[in-house]
Amino acid sequence: MATQGTNLPRVGGYNQAVVLDAIRTAGPVSRVELAPLTGLTSQTVSNVVRRLLAAGLVSESGYAPSNGGKRRTLLSPRADGAYAVGVQLDPDAAVIVVVDLSGEVLASRRIRLADGCDPADVVSRVAGAAARLTTRTGVDPARVLGTGIATPGPIDGSGGAVVAPPNFAGWGRVPLLEMFGAATGMPVAMDNDATAAAIGERWIGGRARAGSFLFIYLGTGVGAGIVLNNTVLHGDSGNAGEFGHMAVQPGRLTCHCGGTNCLGPYVGPGAVIADLLERHGRAAGDRIGLTGGPESVHQDWKVLRRYVRRGDPAAVDAVRRAARLVGQAARGAVALLDVSRVVLGGEAVRGVEQIMCEEIDAAVNTTTVPRVIRKVDIEKSVIGEAVGAVGAASLILHGNYAPGWQMLTRPGT
Amino acid sequence: MATQGTNLPRVGGYNQAVVLDAIRTAGPVSRVELAPLTGLTSQTVSNVVRRLLAAGLVSESGYAPSNGGKRRTLLSPRADGAYAVGVQLDPDAAVIVVVDLSGEVLASRRIRLADGCDPADVVSRVAGAAARLTTRTGVDPARVLGTGIATPGPIDGSGGAVVAPPNFAGWGRVPLLEMFGAATGMPVAMDNDATAAAIGERWIGGRARAGSFLFIYLGTGVGAGIVLNNTVLHGDSGNAGEFGHMAVQPGRLTCHCGGTNCLGPYVGPGAVIADLLERHGRAAGDRIGLTGGPESVHQDWKVLRRYVRRGDPAAVDAVRRAARLVGQAARGAVALLDVSRVVLGGEAVRGVEQIMCEEIDAAVNTTTVPRVIRKVDIEKSVIGEAVGAVGAASLILHGNYAPGWQMLTRPGT
Repeated sequence: MATQGTNLPRVGGYNQAVVLDAIRTAGPVSRVELAPLTGLTSQTVSNVVRRLLAAGLVSESGYAPSNGGKRRTLLSPRADGAYAVGVQLDPDAAVIVVVDLSGEVLASRRIRLADGCDPADVVSRVAGAAARLTTRTGVDPARVLGTGIATPGPIDGSGGAVVAPPNFAGWGRVPLLEMFGAATGMPVAMDNDATAAAIGERWIGGRARAGSFLFIYLGTGVGAGIVLNNTVLHGDSGNAGEFGHMAVQPGRLTCHCGGTNCLGPYVGPGAVIADLLERHGRAAGDRIGLTGGPESVHQDWKVLRRYVRRGDPAAVDAVRRAARLVGQAARGAVALLDVSRVVLGGEAVRGVEQIMCEEIDAAVNTTTVPRVIRKVDIEKSVIGEAVGAVGAASLILHGNYAPGWQMLTRPGT
Repeated sequence: MATQGTNLPRVGGYNQAVVLDAIRTAGPVSRVELAPLTGLTSQTVSNVVRRLLAAGLVSESGYAPSNGGKRRTLLSPRADGAYAVGVQLDPDAAVIVVVDLSGEVLASRRIRLADGCDPADVVSRVAGAAARLTTRTGVDPARVLGTGIATPGPIDGSGGAVVAPPNFAGWGRVPLLEMFGAATGMPVAMDNDATAAAIGERWIGGRARAGSFLFIYLGTGVGAGIVLNNTVLHGDSGNAGEFGHMAVQPGRLTCHCGGTNCLGPYVGPGAVIADLLERHGRAAGDRIGLTGGPESVHQDWKVLRRYVRRGDPAAVDAVRRAARLVGQAARGAVALLDVSRVVLGGEAVRGVEQIMCEEIDAAVNTTTVPRVIRKVDIEKSVIGEAVGAVGAASLILHGNYAPGWQMLTRPGT
């Protein structure tokens, strides 16, 4: 595939996305300020703003303080300009959110999924719940752009199906994109959970998530989302960010890929709990009230993070050992990508962020470039625990409105 | 920095680069074929081709076989359309090349650099030799676009200086870009050696290096260059691809960054020779004629690769152990970037490519995505041993002519 040229209609769409992005990131902002900010002429900015006002995506929101001359009208994004539904699919539960254009969650719901549940059944239940949730918010259905799905990877090359995701018993290649499209009657976008979360951070984080960053996602397992120069890296097969297969100090566990030194098996709630029980003994688990076993991971993790907060030595030690391995992998990823920011998020991060951030910081800020040339910032998600589901919704918002090279060079547009 | 908008003049320059890239990659090719290939209208293709012909960058090179109608004129890139000088700087030597637009080496020279040599002295000697070499080729000086410099990293954030590169005794922050600019009176571009090599592969490799790949560069040390969707990843500080700091199985060596499980200290000729002597004993070294010690690495490496070719067990074992560690790091990088191609090159690769490729293949094709969704191809450099110097020259050619998003969005153009 040759690099594609571009033309005027594509440039128009792209510049509109650039201006909307600038208003979202820097707003409230005047037309006069938008020109230097975007590198566009005042005339182009005026034309684009007129289109954005007509589309209901921005509004005139007041005036800038006068400096003697004519007062400048300020532009702000309209949160009610568009909406999206986000679904985070996990082995034990689906989290559904409805968000507005600003990324604010208007409504959310968690559905427990039974073990070994059938994909068609999951899709039908989730789509039904999403439709009811959307109705309940009372938003204009015409402004709901679609549904984004965040799933554990791997996904297939075309991005439309998950392929035997770990922990989904009996799921082979499941064409979720098509199935959700049929069930919702709306446009659907899909990505792996970590990449969706990174897109959510980029969409909602404004200036704090501009540029490049590595997003480390801790859920049932561990993954990463990669944003380079404001653009999400999808990878040749749509599976960029398989962070769990980074090499770390070899231990006693074998990865589901067969590797003997993958990060994956050592991180995530189940692994940390098992490590605590193995190294500190059953008695240590009993003392703090861990049940142990695959059925009770969710409950045990709540217990463990409570004890981490209290400074329980065994609990802190188990989390810190996992965090050190995450740090090793993060160091390699940062050296490779040369990003100056690492962001940590996912539903398993709550309560252990501090230890994770400390160990990642210790690891990534020791290589030559961070020491000599620039420090790497380690930060928590700006979205928080719902980053997977909000990220899923952001797939739709970002896909429609974020300026990217693909807007200029996509064949047939 | 907000994402920048674009405008007609930028689109014109970009589309010209797109058409030149298509002619270079797919040529000889007709105007009729270029339109679907680039996504541009026939009218735009005609206008752009007229400009490229006038600039002497392409030529009409014959006719396509007639299919009954009017015969189509074929367009080819003109190798003599532009030239660039490339300099690869290593602690012990500088390699200088003059290449034409097709990447063909017209002349090359190697200058030995004394130990502990002064930066100003190095620049002056190299610039003088480059000027003499260029004159000797007899090319039109007006068509020599500039000089590209490939150096060991790290480089500073602005990309204009090296910062205390390992193995360059006494070099602190050295503003090579400025120094070479003053010494040559020409435009100068600079990048780290592995990234320059990756750009060279992209520039010269045509279809075989389209898309995304990880380039693993083995020279005095180990580094990587990253090409994603035909675009080189530079990173926030210009140091993307610091492959030597990927974590691997911890061993006995400490990295210059202080890390105890970095890949770097275990790879590269000096490290492999030291490993052979340490594990197989001084006698094994004497048997095949290794001198040992930092002064004789270049000579010893020649000896070692001769014995590798003969299948000497100690030599093969030492190389294979290093290759396994490269494989571990490559596995993580491939999982993270989701590239479906790994390319191996650099002046230390000769003679050991086979073992390196085998071990990288064994490592990267075991994770889930390559096993289930797509295989990762492991290939040798299309340029060969001079990839560093040719890559350096390609910095200039690629910088002037390769289509990239930055052409559309660079402020002030």
